[in-house]
Amino acid sequence: MIEAYQAQCQNRVDAALERLFVAPQPELQRLYQAMRYSVTNGGKRVRPLLAYAACEALGGNVEHANGAACAVELIHAYSLVHDDLPAMDDDDLRRGKPTTHKAFDEAAAILAGDGLQTLAFEVLGNAELNPHSAELRLAMIATLARASGPAGMVGGQAIDLGSVGQALDQAALENMHRHKTGALIEASVALGALASGNADPATLAALQRYAQAIGLAFQVQDDILDIESDTHTLGKTQGKDQANDKPTYPAILGLQNAKGYALELRDQALAALEDLGSPAEPLRMLARYIVERRH
Amino acid sequence: MIEAYQAQCQNRVDAALERLFVAPQPELQRLYQAMRYSVTNGGKRVRPLLAYAACEALGGNVEHANGAACAVELIHAYSLVHDDLPAMDDDDLRRGKPTTHKAFDEAAAILAGDGLQTLAFEVLGNAELNPHSAELRLAMIATLARASGPAGMVGGQAIDLGSVGQALDQAALENMHRHKTGALIEASVALGALASGNADPATLAALQRYAQAIGLAFQVQDDILDIESDTHTLGKTQGKDQANDKPTYPAILGLQNAKGYALELRDQALAALEDLGSPAEPLRMLARYIVERRH
Repeated sequence: MIEAYQAQCQNRVDAALERLFVAPQPELQRLYQAMRYSVTNGGKRVRPLLAYAACEALGGNVEHANGAACAVELIHAYSLVHDDLPAMDDDDLRRGKPTTHKAFDEAAAILAGDGLQTLAFEVLGNAELNPHSAELRLAMIATLARASGPAGMVGGQAIDLGSVGQALDQAALENMHRHKTGALIEASVALGALASGNADPATLAALQRYAQAIGLAFQVQDDILDIESDTHTLGKTQGKDQANDKPTYPAILGLQNAKGYALELRDQALAALEDLGSPAEPLRMLARYIVERRH
Repeated sequence: MIEAYQAQCQNRVDAALERLFVAPQPELQRLYQAMRYSVTNGGKRVRPLLAYAACEALGGNVEHANGAACAVELIHAYSLVHDDLPAMDDDDLRRGKPTTHKAFDEAAAILAGDGLQTLAFEVLGNAELNPHSAELRLAMIATLARASGPAGMVGGQAIDLGSVGQALDQAALENMHRHKTGALIEASVALGALASGNADPATLAALQRYAQAIGLAFQVQDDILDIESDTHTLGKTQGKDQANDKPTYPAILGLQNAKGYALELRDQALAALEDLGSPAEPLRMLARYIVERRH
C-alpha cells in the first residue's frame, strides 16, 4: 500500500521536476544534465511524499503541493551531491550509480549542487510552479531557508564532519541528526501543510512533532541497516559507517536497544497524528514503513 | 568622492552582515566562522553599493536596501568560495588573504558557500531584515534566484570552466560574462531599485541597461588589469588569466581596443541614466570609477 502511494508521489514529483531541467542555451547543457542526473537517481522521494501527504492530511489538493515537493527534493539532491564530494564523504556510488562527481567531474558536481539549491528557492517563489498567495510562498521560502541553511541541514553536515572519530553521546548524536536530516524532513511536512491552505498553528505543531519523530526513526533505522543489510540491497557500500568510525545509534545504544528506540519513535509519530482523521493515513503508513524497510 | 560613498556603503552593509553570523550553538561555531571569514575578505562591496545607489537613485531610503545589499553580497561571497576550490579555479589567495579552503579546509569551504547561499534567500524572505511587502520580497527573491542560479551566475561559471583553452569569439566571451558576473550585477541594481518602493517598469529597464553596461565594463577592465597591474596591487596572482590560457578581451580585441571598449560601455551606462536626476549621481560615479580603477 505504501508502495502504491509512493509510486504515485514519485511520478507526480518527477513530472514536475522534469520541467525544470531544460537548458536555456547549448552552452549550459552539461550543467543542466548534471543537475538532472543528480536528481534522477532512483531516490525514494521520501521528502516529496511527506509534502504531498501533509497537504492531503489537511484536506488540501495534492497538485498544489508540487512546488513544495520539488523544492524539498531539490535541496535534498543538492546536499547529496555535495556530501558525496571527495572533500566530504568521498562516495563513488549512490544507489548503485556513480555519484555526480564521478559521472561528470568535481567542478560540475559543485556547480550542479549550487544550482539545485537556487532552483529550490526559484520554484517556491514562482507563482505558476507554486500557486499560492505571496504570504504563503514567503512562509514556505522562510521555512525552507531556515531548515536547509547553516542553522539546519548545512549545519548538520558541519557537525557530522566535525564529529567523525569522536565519541558522541546520544544527545550529541541526535543534535547532529536533527540538523543534518531532521530539519529538512520537518520542512517537507511543514511546506506540504502550508500548501494545503488550511494549516493552523496547532496542527502545524502536531505535524512538527510527527516529523521530528519520523526524522529520528529514519536515521536510527539507517544506522541499523548499515549493519544488517548488504551492499547490493543497500545500493551503497555496506558497513561504511563502522569502517569510518562514524557515531551511530547501534554503537551507542546497542543493536537491540536501537531497534526498540526506532519503534518508540514510530509510536510517537502516530500519537502526534491522533487528532487528524483518515486523510492522514499516508503519513501513518510512512511512519510504519520507515522502521520496517530493509533498504 | 566615490571612495567616501563606497566606505559609507561598506560600513552599512558590513554592520548588517555582521548580525547574520552568530552561531546558534557551539557545535556550529566553526561553520559560522568560515562563513564570516568568507564574507569579511576586504572586498569592495560593489554589489551592495549598487543596491544602495539604485535605491537612492529612485528616491528610496537606503536603510530599506540593507536586505538587498546583504543578499547580493552573500551570493557573491559564496560564489567566490566555491570558485576558489581546487576542483574549480584552485586559488590560494583572495585579496592577499588565504582563500576559505586554505584558511579552513575544503569541506568547510563547500559548506560555508552552501550556507551563504541559503542565508541570502533567508534574509530576503525575512520581514525584519528586508522590511517590504510580501509581493516586493517575493519579487526580490525571484530576481535573485534567476540571476544567481543555473541560468545565471552558476551557469556562467559552468560556461567559463567549459571554455578554458578554447578560442572564444567576442560574442561567446560576452555570453560567459553576462552569466558569470553580469547577472548578479543586474540583480544588485534591480533589488536596490525594488527596495526603493518606487520602481516602475521603464525605470527598471533603464537601470538594467545601465547594469549590463557596467557589468561588461567591469569585466573588460578586470582583463586589462590582469595584464597591466602587478600581483601586489591586484591582491591576486597577476597574469593568471594568460597563464591559464583564459579567453580575455585584450586577447580578442587587442589591449588598446579593449580600453576603448571599456570607455564606450561607461558612456552607454551614463546614457541609460539620462532621465534620472542628481539622486543617480552615485551610480554615475561608479560607472566612471570602474574604468579608471587600478585594482
